Amino acid sequence: MNLRKELRDISCRVKESSRFLAGMSVSLKNKILEEMACALELNSGKILAANKLDLSSAKKSGLSRAFIDRLQLDQSRILQMSVSLRELIKLKDPVGDVIKAWKVPNGLWIHKVRVPLGVVAIIYESRPNVTADCIGLCFKSGNSVILRGGSQALRSNLAIAKVLFDAARKHGVPEGAMHVVSTADRRAVAELLKLNEYIDVVIPRGGKGLIDTVVRLSRIPVIKHYQGICHVYVDEWADLNMAEKICFNAKVQRPGVCNAMETLLVHKDMAARFLPLMLKRFKDAGVVIHGCPLTVRIAKRIKSSAGSSRWFRKATEKDYRTEYLDLILSVRVVESLAQAITHINTYGSHHSDSIVSEHYESTLTFLNQVDSACVYVNASTRFTDGGEFGMGAEIGISTDKLHARGPMALEELTSYKYMVFGNGQVRTS
Amino acid sequence: MNLRKELRDISCRVKESSRFLAGMSVSLKNKILEEMACALELNSGKILAANKLDLSSAKKSGLSRAFIDRLQLDQSRILQMSVSLRELIKLKDPVGDVIKAWKVPNGLWIHKVRVPLGVVAIIYESRPNVTADCIGLCFKSGNSVILRGGSQALRSNLAIAKVLFDAARKHGVPEGAMHVVSTADRRAVAELLKLNEYIDVVIPRGGKGLIDTVVRLSRIPVIKHYQGICHVYVDEWADLNMAEKICFNAKVQRPGVCNAMETLLVHKDMAARFLPLMLKRFKDAGVVIHGCPLTVRIAKRIKSSAGSSRWFRKATEKDYRTEYLDLILSVRVVESLAQAITHINTYGSHHSDSIVSEHYESTLTFLNQVDSACVYVNASTRFTDGGEFGMGAEIGISTDKLHARGPMALEELTSYKYMVFGNGQVRTS
Repeated sequence: MNLRKELRDISCRVKESSRFLAGMSVSLKNKILEEMACALELNSGKILAANKLDLSSAKKSGLSRAFIDRLQLDQSRILQMSVSLRELIKLKDPVGDVIKAWKVPNGLWIHKVRVPLGVVAIIYESRPNVTADCIGLCFKSGNSVILRGGSQALRSNLAIAKVLFDAARKHGVPEGAMHVVSTADRRAVAELLKLNEYIDVVIPRGGKGLIDTVVRLSRIPVIKHYQGICHVYVDEWADLNMAEKICFNAKVQRPGVCNAMETLLVHKDMAARFLPLMLKRFKDAGVVIHGCPLTVRIAKRIKSSAGSSRWFRKATEKDYRTEYLDLILSVRVVESLAQAITHINTYGSHHSDSIVSEHYESTLTFLNQVDSACVYVNASTRFTDGGEFGMGAEIGISTDKLHARGPMALEELTSYKYMVFGNGQVRTS
Repeated sequence: MNLRKELRDISCRVKESSRFLAGMSVSLKNKILEEMACALELNSGKILAANKLDLSSAKKSGLSRAFIDRLQLDQSRILQMSVSLRELIKLKDPVGDVIKAWKVPNGLWIHKVRVPLGVVAIIYESRPNVTADCIGLCFKSGNSVILRGGSQALRSNLAIAKVLFDAARKHGVPEGAMHVVSTADRRAVAELLKLNEYIDVVIPRGGKGLIDTVVRLSRIPVIKHYQGICHVYVDEWADLNMAEKICFNAKVQRPGVCNAMETLLVHKDMAARFLPLMLKRFKDAGVVIHGCPLTVRIAKRIKSSAGSSRWFRKATEKDYRTEYLDLILSVRVVESLAQAITHINTYGSHHSDSIVSEHYESTLTFLNQVDSACVYVNASTRFTDGGEFGMGAEIGISTDKLHARGPMALEELTSYKYMVFGNGQVRTS
């Protein structure tokens, strides 16, 4: 009961502070962002000290090396946070933009104007850099933010938020504008997710388990940044040199991210010409193949001339639904463009999918029928990213259809309202 | 368990049909809408027969007259449905609109293109006209729709949906494009709200209880069309003739709708000049006043010259949070513009609020600081409506900030996707 009241009081204060933020000028916001960036650098000692305590507890708990790596801060990582804050200064503030404006016959002049969402809650795992990034993005877009990170990073998160808020407070930014939930109580997330009176949107950042939990418990609208089961489809009309380049890039350049390819689909008429070379290249790069029967037959022939057979095996239905985030790739030969599209819409995660083809009608069909946030022709799926799209920093890639789809940056952190200018109009019908 | 499986199968079919709808040309959609309108008129006998069965059950259950009135259909109400469908033909189809398009330095050409949401679920009370309206709006915007209306209207809803679907089926529209959930099982709503794999958005239409239940149970994003606790604030710089006209219109012209005024706020320096005349006019129109102490004092003086005192009483805190939907009005005298804004943001429902003022700075402050979907200067709140805004028909007025805010029409029933045209781009960093 105390936890509920505590979180309600905090959220109420955060909501109040959001009114102040919504009214801030962009020049003041930019000035504060610059001071926040400086403060991070000046206070890196304090932040690293807090991080050290988090790290030593995490090591005692026997957490994995990958976990520790994500948790660990150093001078260069803190510098990266301050660079990110300074990059926000250059980005256009979307608040106040008139999306459209028009006059209706009775003379009312209607303006649809961008406004901040209000209060954004971020629920994430133990990555302290997310704390600074989210505070920066929400602040620039005029939103208050409630942060609930993984408990192992709590001291680091509190230290970062304090340094940033101290810089903002000097300019009148009220308490609550950037709040880290500090209770260790594990029920805090469930309680927070009931506070739809104060919190306007919740963005979970992390694995499927975390996101599913948030969706199940939340009365607040959720924007999901789900997994990326991304496909490249090599059409019967593909330029095979281009296809090889794109597929290699989509899988190998950075396999651990959501916009990397997880499944390669190849038209049956191309399989014999394309797959031997492509599979060989993947094999040489250390990629393990989970293939359909035909793919496995082709892989076997490569094996016979090269040794080990552990680099491929038969694909299962489950493989097609798996986000490997690793040097593993499902490969399937399909009968037709239509089958490729059905495969993507059935097994994919509606994130990013690409067709390689020189056939005009095939590309249009793919663009229209693939139901994903980003659909590509003749390009790597790896471009799905706020920076690459020219939006600047992003808070994530939405796999939802409501409000924000694909890269979610400053504009997607806004809502709108209608401002209506009249001169005495009343309604008669 | 059977219910769960049944609803899952249905939703899966509805999802599949949404792919067909998303690809339909606007000319075919318009042709079908015309045939749907004709079919309603030609088959009004069947629909009225079904409605008669619903009515007789409802009467046996002793439901209220208002309830029966909303449930009842007649020739003219069916004609109104077909008129609404024909009006949709004239409206611009938003699907396929390029919201924006740009090239990034590496040559990728990015198009942000409107697409249908996919599957829309509507949960509503026993109003059969909503069935036809929602089917029309979803169909025109390329969405499949699952309808769960009040059980007392089930036979009417099934009859309407069958007539409309029969018209669409002739043109190849697949089963599931407009599905009325026909099970009588009351757990159907709870089960439906778990199917976020198939349903993209749920729109509850009805009272606070219905909406709160949907929000609590749903794993699907919800767009809330909540109550309208709308305010008019008469500023110290108001043109009092205009203020009287606007306030009277906002309360009296149609008190039972969400954009009617529920609370009148008056600047203290205007109270003595404005309220005596205004309250008298409300009294004559049969409006009951729940007033602050000063309002009550002024009302008492009117009483002494006119008789009955039952037309006013002291307002409670609860009154300020009440959507009367009736000839009842809360009236409060405030110290300042700032107090008026705080009152609106605290007690209102973020729907529609208006300031009457000739003071430039006051109007700007009000427009910026009132956190509502529609904020007016010198106009009645009654204009918050898709038709009045020039958007055509609406599916409701969203009081949410995510995705859609204010009148929600065809454009708000769409999402977008990024179509990206490349010529071999791969990512290098």
